[in-house]
Amino acid sequence: MSDSSNFINTDFAKIKKLEEKPHKYEQELQRTRNLQERLRALVTVIRNITEELYLEPLLWRIMDEVKRILKADRCTVFLLDEEKKELWSKVAHGIEGYEIRFPLSKGIAGYVAKTGEVLNISNCYQDPRFNPEIDRKTGYHTRNILCVPMRNKLGEVVGVFQVLNKLDGAFTDDDVEMLLLISTIAASQIENAQLYEEQRKTFNSLIETLASTIDARDPLTAGHSRRIMLYADEIAKLANFSIEEREILRTAALLHDIGKIGVRESILTKKSKLTPSEYEHIKSHVVYTRAILKKIHFSWKFRQVPQIASSHHEKMNGSGYPEGLKGDAIPVGGRILAIADLFDALTSKRHYADRMKFEKVVQILEQGADLEYDAELIEAFKRIPLDRLVLILEDENSQHLSQDDLHFLSHYTLNDLVQTLQNSNFPKDQLFVQTFMKYYFRQY
Amino acid sequence: MSDSSNFINTDFAKIKKLEEKPHKYEQELQRTRNLQERLRALVTVIRNITEELYLEPLLWRIMDEVKRILKADRCTVFLLDEEKKELWSKVAHGIEGYEIRFPLSKGIAGYVAKTGEVLNISNCYQDPRFNPEIDRKTGYHTRNILCVPMRNKLGEVVGVFQVLNKLDGAFTDDDVEMLLLISTIAASQIENAQLYEEQRKTFNSLIETLASTIDARDPLTAGHSRRIMLYADEIAKLANFSIEEREILRTAALLHDIGKIGVRESILTKKSKLTPSEYEHIKSHVVYTRAILKKIHFSWKFRQVPQIASSHHEKMNGSGYPEGLKGDAIPVGGRILAIADLFDALTSKRHYADRMKFEKVVQILEQGADLEYDAELIEAFKRIPLDRLVLILEDENSQHLSQDDLHFLSHYTLNDLVQTLQNSNFPKDQLFVQTFMKYYFRQY
Repeated sequence: MSDSSNFINTDFAKIKKLEEKPHKYEQELQRTRNLQERLRALVTVIRNITEELYLEPLLWRIMDEVKRILKADRCTVFLLDEEKKELWSKVAHGIEGYEIRFPLSKGIAGYVAKTGEVLNISNCYQDPRFNPEIDRKTGYHTRNILCVPMRNKLGEVVGVFQVLNKLDGAFTDDDVEMLLLISTIAASQIENAQLYEEQRKTFNSLIETLASTIDARDPLTAGHSRRIMLYADEIAKLANFSIEEREILRTAALLHDIGKIGVRESILTKKSKLTPSEYEHIKSHVVYTRAILKKIHFSWKFRQVPQIASSHHEKMNGSGYPEGLKGDAIPVGGRILAIADLFDALTSKRHYADRMKFEKVVQILEQGADLEYDAELIEAFKRIPLDRLVLILEDENSQHLSQDDLHFLSHYTLNDLVQTLQNSNFPKDQLFVQTFMKYYFRQY
Repeated sequence: MSDSSNFINTDFAKIKKLEEKPHKYEQELQRTRNLQERLRALVTVIRNITEELYLEPLLWRIMDEVKRILKADRCTVFLLDEEKKELWSKVAHGIEGYEIRFPLSKGIAGYVAKTGEVLNISNCYQDPRFNPEIDRKTGYHTRNILCVPMRNKLGEVVGVFQVLNKLDGAFTDDDVEMLLLISTIAASQIENAQLYEEQRKTFNSLIETLASTIDARDPLTAGHSRRIMLYADEIAKLANFSIEEREILRTAALLHDIGKIGVRESILTKKSKLTPSEYEHIKSHVVYTRAILKKIHFSWKFRQVPQIASSHHEKMNGSGYPEGLKGDAIPVGGRILAIADLFDALTSKRHYADRMKFEKVVQILEQGADLEYDAELIEAFKRIPLDRLVLILEDENSQHLSQDDLHFLSHYTLNDLVQTLQNSNFPKDQLFVQTFMKYYFRQY
């Protein structure tokens, strides 16, 4: 009996032990599954983050992913401005549309950026480091904050992740670990995006500066390349170009006269009529433009730039140069540049002369449609709002423009203006016509 | 008894069941732990991958990480050349140093790139798609291959991951899953790196083309900016500049004469002696250079470019222009450009005149040391191997250079040449002197 009893006893003990074990296993398994779940989520986050090369959409993506994976209400990535010792953000949940900037001495984020510490604060309003200013301004109520430093590969703090209001309770240690991992990967992505944007800015400012330097060799063409770029971009917008196509066109526009580096100054600035051979020499600038641009290594995306830039003197009927291309054989970007180039030539101030009467400009523009210029693109151009048109015409005199006038003009298009000027039934003294003409003839 | 027996029976069944359960738990736990381990490793891989912005080191890093995490012997990332319908790789374990290129019709990798399928082949030599050519060439023996397509965010195949010879057995389904995950993230990183490099190439080729166009306005200065860039880079190398510092200096070198866009052609190309006012006008190109470069948005890294570029006419004793800076107040990059600029001016062919005698060049260079030029940097310059010097002097006539002569000259430095020319104990008819002079005086 003792044996049996013993057996049974032992047996019960064993059962008890075995029954407990699964419970522990179950717990560990659950924990591991959770972790696995989170790591999988992390991989997704990373995948989504690494897809974006441009800074602003990248930051939005990072913030949305962090919000989602940490089950929080808001997230902001603050970047460190090393020079000014400030944190800044252009994109933050709840405060879209403007830039936030504050010194490192302020708030939780400032503290984290300065010290490199992780702060997980379950009740903000009890923490003296919390700066309630933004809550007051925005009407938001911050309950808890998880704030971690973002470090680059050298371990330097380059920014701060701030996550607000865990949807359910407080932020856990797992949240901290997860956010630190994301922040490491985000840091290198953000650094890459910044480098990339800096590089684009350098390139764009170089070609803009060059264009304006070349334009300035002849006082008559000062500001020309930039205006062509602006007109062309408006036409492209109205002709439903994609953002990428517009970028290509703007680049070509800024570079379209780069070949003038190769044109003799004496001819470029000659005030009397050009001889035929001088005119041929001037025309050669397009050939130089192409030759110079052909030597430049453009990426696949920008490969059409040389062709577009050097076709701005081609005409629809084949009477243009340098190749005498006809109609659709001229790249559409080149056809846009031709219109922009003509319009700028017609509306630029000549030596000792005022601007050409606008009626005459319109007349020349319309005469050229189809025969020399792409009629459809001229139609697109006519849909440009008059405020945009004035902004470009007076690009170099923007200090004279009144915001009220611009706002008023934004309700009319070039087409409205053309209709009014051409149709004898429309009164010519309408306010929008007068307002436009005030700027067109620089009556200020 | 039946009860008891039943109880005991039931009991045994329960124990048996419970004893089995832990085993299953243990298995599942192990599986989960493995997965967890791999996911953690994956996060590390990703973190390492995202740190690198430059294509070549990025590819190496990706390949090393894949090799490590998949416990394989080799890994190659082939990129798709969409235009030529080829796969290519510059970096591959075991075949360093040259580019591999093959059409999509070839081998396992070609098949995967074409079809987008995953191939896990445990015995290559039994698979008709396997191309044994490379094994034959390299003496390597490929046992098994895991090959997966690399897709961009649009799902298009942009390359192929090829992993060779699992160290222990064959590649598993887990390996496939892992490699597919890595390849997705690698794809966006590679795409970013390519964009970044393309952008750099565009920028560099733009400034190189511009510089050469500006130099070409005056036949005497053709090729000048590029040679300055090459000389400066050699000096910087010999003065132990970092790769980044050299990049900054090369950019400044190419841009140092950009201000000549603003100098009147008539003066730039005047053959007779310049009047004092004309000389002042020529000197203004440095001011233009600075004004133009100041308008360009340089990234933090390149912020010194305008200052370096516009200080190439400053002298150590303060007699230079535009600022009359003295000694260390002149940026070191500017001091290097000054030496490069002087050397190029002295060794350029003048109108109808041959190059200046090299003894005279050396004499002027040495006279200027300390008073006008940085003596230490001149010493660094003298350590330039003679093959490098000839390559730059004859940058525009490289078709005349013999590889054998260059190799011979690589054993001597400018210093050896100077010593020989200046020291009456050294015979002047040594072969290396004669070889150098053959190229210096273009006796071919």
